[in-house]
Amino acid sequence: MELIKPSIPRGTRDFLPEQMLKRQYVINIIKNVFEKYGYQPLETPSIEKLDILSGKYGDEGDQLMFKILKRGTGIEKLGKELNQFSFGDFREVADLGLRYDLTVPLCRVIAMYRNEITLPFKRYQIQPVWRAERPQKGRYREFFQCDADNVGSASMLADAETIAIINEILLKLGFYKFKIKINNRKILSGIVEYSGVNPELGTEVCIAIDKLEKIGVDGVVAELKQRNIAESAIAKILPILEISGDVATVLNDVSTVLKISPIGSEGVSETSELIEYLAAMAIAPENYLVDLHLARGLTYYTGPIFESIVEEPKIGSLTGGGRYDQLIGMFLGENIPATGTTLGIERIIDVMTELDMLPQTKTMTQVLVTMFDESTKSASIKLVQKLRQADINAELYFESGGLKKQFKYADKLGIPFVIIMGPDEVEKNQASLKNMVSGEQQQLAVDQILQILKQ
Amino acid sequence: MELIKPSIPRGTRDFLPEQMLKRQYVINIIKNVFEKYGYQPLETPSIEKLDILSGKYGDEGDQLMFKILKRGTGIEKLGKELNQFSFGDFREVADLGLRYDLTVPLCRVIAMYRNEITLPFKRYQIQPVWRAERPQKGRYREFFQCDADNVGSASMLADAETIAIINEILLKLGFYKFKIKINNRKILSGIVEYSGVNPELGTEVCIAIDKLEKIGVDGVVAELKQRNIAESAIAKILPILEISGDVATVLNDVSTVLKISPIGSEGVSETSELIEYLAAMAIAPENYLVDLHLARGLTYYTGPIFESIVEEPKIGSLTGGGRYDQLIGMFLGENIPATGTTLGIERIIDVMTELDMLPQTKTMTQVLVTMFDESTKSASIKLVQKLRQADINAELYFESGGLKKQFKYADKLGIPFVIIMGPDEVEKNQASLKNMVSGEQQQLAVDQILQILKQ
Repeated sequence: MELIKPSIPRGTRDFLPEQMLKRQYVINIIKNVFEKYGYQPLETPSIEKLDILSGKYGDEGDQLMFKILKRGTGIEKLGKELNQFSFGDFREVADLGLRYDLTVPLCRVIAMYRNEITLPFKRYQIQPVWRAERPQKGRYREFFQCDADNVGSASMLADAETIAIINEILLKLGFYKFKIKINNRKILSGIVEYSGVNPELGTEVCIAIDKLEKIGVDGVVAELKQRNIAESAIAKILPILEISGDVATVLNDVSTVLKISPIGSEGVSETSELIEYLAAMAIAPENYLVDLHLARGLTYYTGPIFESIVEEPKIGSLTGGGRYDQLIGMFLGENIPATGTTLGIERIIDVMTELDMLPQTKTMTQVLVTMFDESTKSASIKLVQKLRQADINAELYFESGGLKKQFKYADKLGIPFVIIMGPDEVEKNQASLKNMVSGEQQQLAVDQILQILKQ
Repeated sequence: MELIKPSIPRGTRDFLPEQMLKRQYVINIIKNVFEKYGYQPLETPSIEKLDILSGKYGDEGDQLMFKILKRGTGIEKLGKELNQFSFGDFREVADLGLRYDLTVPLCRVIAMYRNEITLPFKRYQIQPVWRAERPQKGRYREFFQCDADNVGSASMLADAETIAIINEILLKLGFYKFKIKINNRKILSGIVEYSGVNPELGTEVCIAIDKLEKIGVDGVVAELKQRNIAESAIAKILPILEISGDVATVLNDVSTVLKISPIGSEGVSETSELIEYLAAMAIAPENYLVDLHLARGLTYYTGPIFESIVEEPKIGSLTGGGRYDQLIGMFLGENIPATGTTLGIERIIDVMTELDMLPQTKTMTQVLVTMFDESTKSASIKLVQKLRQADINAELYFESGGLKKQFKYADKLGIPFVIIMGPDEVEKNQASLKNMVSGEQQQLAVDQILQILKQ
C-alpha cells in the first residue's frame, strides 16, 4: 500500500498530552470563575446553516467562512465522469458552514428556545470556531473561543459583573498588571453628534479616534481629514481627545462637553453607574479606566464596551466585549438586551506558555508500577489495581525486565513516583517506592505507600 | 431587516445548561477512570486533509464524510456570474473533510510525532466527529466519540487493561448487569482455516457467524450457504457454533477443535492469557465471557476484540474495541501494535437520561442573592462578592423589587438557596437564607451563612 504522508491542514494544531494539560489548567480557571458568577455551560453544533451565518460578519466574514459541501449533488464526480458542473445557485452545492464565532449561535439559541429559557440567561461557551484566515504566529484557522454572556438584563450591573469576571480571571491566571478599558458606544455617538458630523460618517470618526494610542493626536487629525471630516468638526473633537486621567476626571470632563448631546449624556450616565458598581464590588481602581478612544470594531455593540490590556508583561489585548441590545432581534424580531465578553484563550495560553506562567506538569499519572520479571507479574498487577481502587492514577509497565528502561520511561513522561515489586518485596509483602524528583527510595508496606501517594 | 428563522442542521443538537451538566457528569466519570489507568488527554483538529481520511472507512465512509469547500476557487459565484463550473479534479474544489472518527487521527499523530512520543503512548480523546448519516433516534450527524487507546505494546495486558477500564466505567456509571464479550480475530481466522474455506471468503464466514445471536444456528447455516460456503465447510463450522458456557469450557473446547490451525491456536492462547490477567485484576467473572461469534465490523482489527452489552436494563451495546496492530503502518510504514476501545457516549447519555440514572442538578449555582430595593442594592452587591470570595457559586438578581418574581426565577433555575437582604437585615448586619428545598428560612450573620453554604 502507498504510504500516506501524515500532516494536518494549515492553521490547525494537534494538542499532545503535555499541551492538553496546560490548556485544561487555563480553561478550568476560567470555567470556575464563570460558574462562581452564576454562568452555566452551553454548547452548540460546530455546523450552522449558511442562512444563519451569512451577513453577520461583513463581507470579510462571508469570505473567511468554511463552507461544507452538500452530499448527493454529484459534484464529487468532477474530474472522473464530469468535467463541468452546472447549477442555478451556489446554495445548491453548499448550505452549511463551520461556526465563525459564539455570539451568533447564542442569539440563535435564545430565539429558538425563547419559551424554554428563563431570562436573565447567563451562559458561558468554550468551543472551537473556524476562520480561513492567513495563518501566522498566534493566529489559527481552528481556535477556541471562550465567551460569557448575560442575556435579558439592561442593567449596568450586568456590564459591571462582566468586568468583575475579567478582572478575577486575569488575576487568577497570574497577570498582575493590567487595565480594563471601558467606554460606551453612546459616548462615541455623542461625540459625533456634538461635533456636528453627519451621523452617516460616525463610523469613520470612531475608526480614526480608536487609533489614538498608535498614531497620536496629530495622526488622528490627519486621519479625520482624510476621511472627509470637516475642519470645524475636527476642532470640536480635538479637546475631547485630550481628556484623560482618573475615572472621575474623565467622566466629569466629558460630561461637561457632551451636555448638549442627549445620546452622549446617556452614555456618560451609564458609565458613571457602571463605575459605581465596580467600586461596590471592590474591584481595584488601578485595574480599570475610562478610555474615550476605545471604539472596538464590531458594529453590533450598542452600549458599554470593554477591552483588557495586559501591561506587564507588555502583551496587549487579551479580552474584549460589550453590550449588544439589538443583535438577538435579528433572529427573534423582538430586541432582548445582552452583554458579554470574549476571552482570547489561544492568545492567553500562548502568552502564558512563553512567559512560563503554566504548571510544568507533564502527566496526570502519579506513579508507575514497574514489572520486575515474569514471577512477580501477578503481584504487580494486583498492586496497581489496589492503587487505582484508592483513586491514585497509576500506570503498569507491561513488559517485564529492564528496570532501567522502565525508570527512563517514567522520567520521560514526568511521572513523579515509581514502584518496584521484585521477588524480595513480594516475599516481605512490601514494595519499594522511589521519588523521581528527590531520588529517595524506601521499601515500605503497601498501606504506607498508599498514604504517601494520597497526600 | 428580514427575520431569519432560527434552526440548526439536521442531526445536530444544542446542549442547554441542564443537558450540559448531565453530559459533563458522564464525561467526568469516564475521564477520571481513564486517568486512573494512566491515559492522558489528546485533541486533534476537527478538520483533516481528505488524503488522510479517504479510503479508511470503506466506500460508505467516503460518501458519509462531510467535505469542506476550498476557498478562492470561484465556485461561490455559481448562480450569480457563473452558471457552470469546470474543473480537472474534484480535489481542486474540496481538499479537507470533517473528522470521521478518532482512530485515524490517532494513527496520524503517532506517525507525525514518532520522535517526540514515548511508547507506550496511552491516550484518551473525547471530541465530536461528523457523519452525514440519515438522522434517526439516537443517531446524530455530529456526535462525540470517546476513545482510549494504548499504542506500542503487543502484550495482552494492554487488552486486559482496556477491558478493566470498560468494566470500571460501566460500574461507576451505575450499570449493574452487563457482559463484556471477548473474542479474537485469530480465532475467527482459525475457524476459516480449520473448515477449509478459501481465505478470501473468510470475511463472509465472519459476517454470517456474527449474526448467530440474532438469527440462530439455522439462520447462520442458511446465510453461510447463501454466501457460497461449501457444505463440507459448514459441517465443520457447525460444532464450533455450539460451543458455549463458562470461559474455561469455551477455551478448552475451541482449543481442541482448532489444534490443527496455527493461527487459531495463537488466538486461543492469546485469549487464555488475557483471561488470566482479568482474573489477576479481580474483574468479576460474571462481567465478561468469551463469545466465539463476536466478529465486529471494522476490517482493521488483528487480535482481541471486545464489545460490552448491557443486559439489564436491556439496552444493547455501549462500547466496542479491539487490537489493530497494522493500522498505524498505513501512515508510518512501520507497524506499531495498538489496542483500544470506543465508548458510545451519546448512547450512554441518552440511555441514562431515559432511565433516570443522571443527577437532577439543573445548575452549578448554589445561591441567588435577591435585590430588595435600591436602598439595599449596594449591600447585596457586597454580599454576593463576599460569597464568591469564599468560592461559593452565587448569582445576583439585577433588578430590584418584586421578591416573588426573584424567588420564582431561583426555583425555575433550580438554585437551592436564596438570600434576602432587606433594610431590616442590612441594619442588623445579617441576611436571610432560604432553603428552596425545605422552605426553611433563617436570619443569620453572614459568616454563619457562609458556613452553611460551604457544606
